[in-house]
Amino acid sequence: MTQPRRILSDAERLDWLRLIRTENVGPITFHRLLDQYGGAREALDMLPELARRGGRVKPLRVASKAEAERELAANRRLGARLLCACEPDYPEPLAAVDDAPPVVSVLGHAHLLQKRAVAIVGARNASLNGKKFAESLARDLGAAGLLVVSGLARGIDTAAHRGSLASGTAAVVAGGIDVVYPPENEDLYRDIVAQGVVVAESPIGTQPQARHFPRRNRLISGLSLGILVVEAALRSGSLITARMALEQGREVMAVPGSPLDPRCHGTNNLIRQGAALVESADDVLRALESLRPPSLAERRRDLFETRKPAEPDESDLARARAVVLENLGPSPVTIDELVRGCQLSAPVVLTVVLELELAGRVQRHPGHQVSLA
Amino acid sequence: MTQPRRILSDAERLDWLRLIRTENVGPITFHRLLDQYGGAREALDMLPELARRGGRVKPLRVASKAEAERELAANRRLGARLLCACEPDYPEPLAAVDDAPPVVSVLGHAHLLQKRAVAIVGARNASLNGKKFAESLARDLGAAGLLVVSGLARGIDTAAHRGSLASGTAAVVAGGIDVVYPPENEDLYRDIVAQGVVVAESPIGTQPQARHFPRRNRLISGLSLGILVVEAALRSGSLITARMALEQGREVMAVPGSPLDPRCHGTNNLIRQGAALVESADDVLRALESLRPPSLAERRRDLFETRKPAEPDESDLARARAVVLENLGPSPVTIDELVRGCQLSAPVVLTVVLELELAGRVQRHPGHQVSLA
Repeated sequence: MTQPRRILSDAERLDWLRLIRTENVGPITFHRLLDQYGGAREALDMLPELARRGGRVKPLRVASKAEAERELAANRRLGARLLCACEPDYPEPLAAVDDAPPVVSVLGHAHLLQKRAVAIVGARNASLNGKKFAESLARDLGAAGLLVVSGLARGIDTAAHRGSLASGTAAVVAGGIDVVYPPENEDLYRDIVAQGVVVAESPIGTQPQARHFPRRNRLISGLSLGILVVEAALRSGSLITARMALEQGREVMAVPGSPLDPRCHGTNNLIRQGAALVESADDVLRALESLRPPSLAERRRDLFETRKPAEPDESDLARARAVVLENLGPSPVTIDELVRGCQLSAPVVLTVVLELELAGRVQRHPGHQVSLA
Repeated sequence: MTQPRRILSDAERLDWLRLIRTENVGPITFHRLLDQYGGAREALDMLPELARRGGRVKPLRVASKAEAERELAANRRLGARLLCACEPDYPEPLAAVDDAPPVVSVLGHAHLLQKRAVAIVGARNASLNGKKFAESLARDLGAAGLLVVSGLARGIDTAAHRGSLASGTAAVVAGGIDVVYPPENEDLYRDIVAQGVVVAESPIGTQPQARHFPRRNRLISGLSLGILVVEAALRSGSLITARMALEQGREVMAVPGSPLDPRCHGTNNLIRQGAALVESADDVLRALESLRPPSLAERRRDLFETRKPAEPDESDLARARAVVLENLGPSPVTIDELVRGCQLSAPVVLTVVLELELAGRVQRHPGHQVSLA
């Protein structure tokens, strides 16, 4: 998102929402469309043509104005606000992420998102001691002035929210802003709405599904200067969040634990790989103290973001499309590899990929990778 | 110890024993005397004169031939052997230590000391899980062909010996080779004598005192390629062993644990400072696999060891003695600092310090430090 920071008009907000709710438009494509065409309105106008060029036969399902208005109204009824990535109230550390959600729904005390934040995440089946530790650490970090971010899950997340309820806590949910998951955290959710803040990327009313959770995790780390993992088994969701935090350039911290407890293998492994070892709030504060909040100015500038490609002519593109499709397969490759493999210019490849994505023939993956859909 | 490796004659062994059992002669002074005068016999002859020069009024209590013979006989009766630091059976990693004990008493299967060794140490008041982990790790490391070294203490030490009894374990005791401490480990001690090996630096019959334990710890690390700490509070003896291991250039490893358990604060802190994080025997084997056993050839060559000082003349020494005494106080300083502070040549300062130590006016401390006694 390289748009200037400003408050959007109601009409613009509606266009942003329509664009991100459109079939085959993910955050990276969204930002690229905005960069290329100057605004959501212009991008919406271009969509049918781009998808057609990408080989789409039936028309692209573009979100209608009425649908977007219904979503805005539903948020308003709940008391939630929609924040767009270019707006001043949208948390800057999250805006600095490559695939920042173009629009988030925020319920509760949105101003809390302006505080320096730390994420505390970990096992759902956490030990009593792990939960106790997470709660007391969250309390101490809250007392030290930090916003504590987590995912409203059972176990460590719940403990982290509980400990920081009084000082400021942010729950990032995988489904819609109004959907409490797990249901047993209904009371905690209400408390957070009353005293903290809830953030959602999915449209209001969305029931969370497995695929939503990794995407949600990038918001948890994206909102934060650093992420602390308290108890995590190997190959657990918390480690995915840790990897995302690393990719986002955020500090990764972990609490050590007994090798006899599989719930500590993931955190011990993070420490082995260089995560800061945390035994107390002081350890976290020390790890974070020298960090400046990630800002848009430091945002990774790469192919996706900054080189506004010249519009290549149609015969070039037709040839390029064939080459790109030939070079892609079901296994993801990075855009860089694709550019080298195709022996085409980056702007041409990027344009072709965008069109193919809108046509539903190419899929994006984390780490700037793409594959055949 | 820069003497050539060879088996000593009975007469030489007796002289070695007399010299190290002499008042005010510690390991560093012992090795220096041997380097300077060529042998234990020659050093014994020089002792009274050196002590007198250092300002000693009443004669130095030199161990008599009869006393040394009694100690040798007592060891023999028990079935223990005395190994001198220059002898081939004396474990080379220990000989490579600056303050290697000139003579150790060995009971049981001395040949085990020729194996690649790893020390496992930790809290006496260890948790059930800590002990369970230490025992199973010692078993796995023994099965992988390593000798497991520990200190026969309660808790982790006991568990480490138990786990490695069948494959080979070495207990380094703080008192005499025949003194079991703590008494409750009488049975374990007997098992180790029967199946493993016991090592002692103190004369046979010595009851262990507080000051013996840190000295003993340098043998535990000195015998080993690396040392693994399983549960240790801050400011605990195990951390002293870890520091000694570092000074000796040995690998330091630690088992992580919950921040809620003070018995893990020491090990977590070691990991924070760079110790290898250990969750399994494989982690230990990986950390040790690339290490060659420490050898005499790699021994630290410093002021104490290699520069054989020219014998300065007496009037120079008298002046130097006054300057050295003036520069020393009750707080330890390094020999390097002392040499710089006195503006005298290193050989002169070393000779004066040796004499003052024999006279009982100067005391040596770990890290090549000295102070007024």
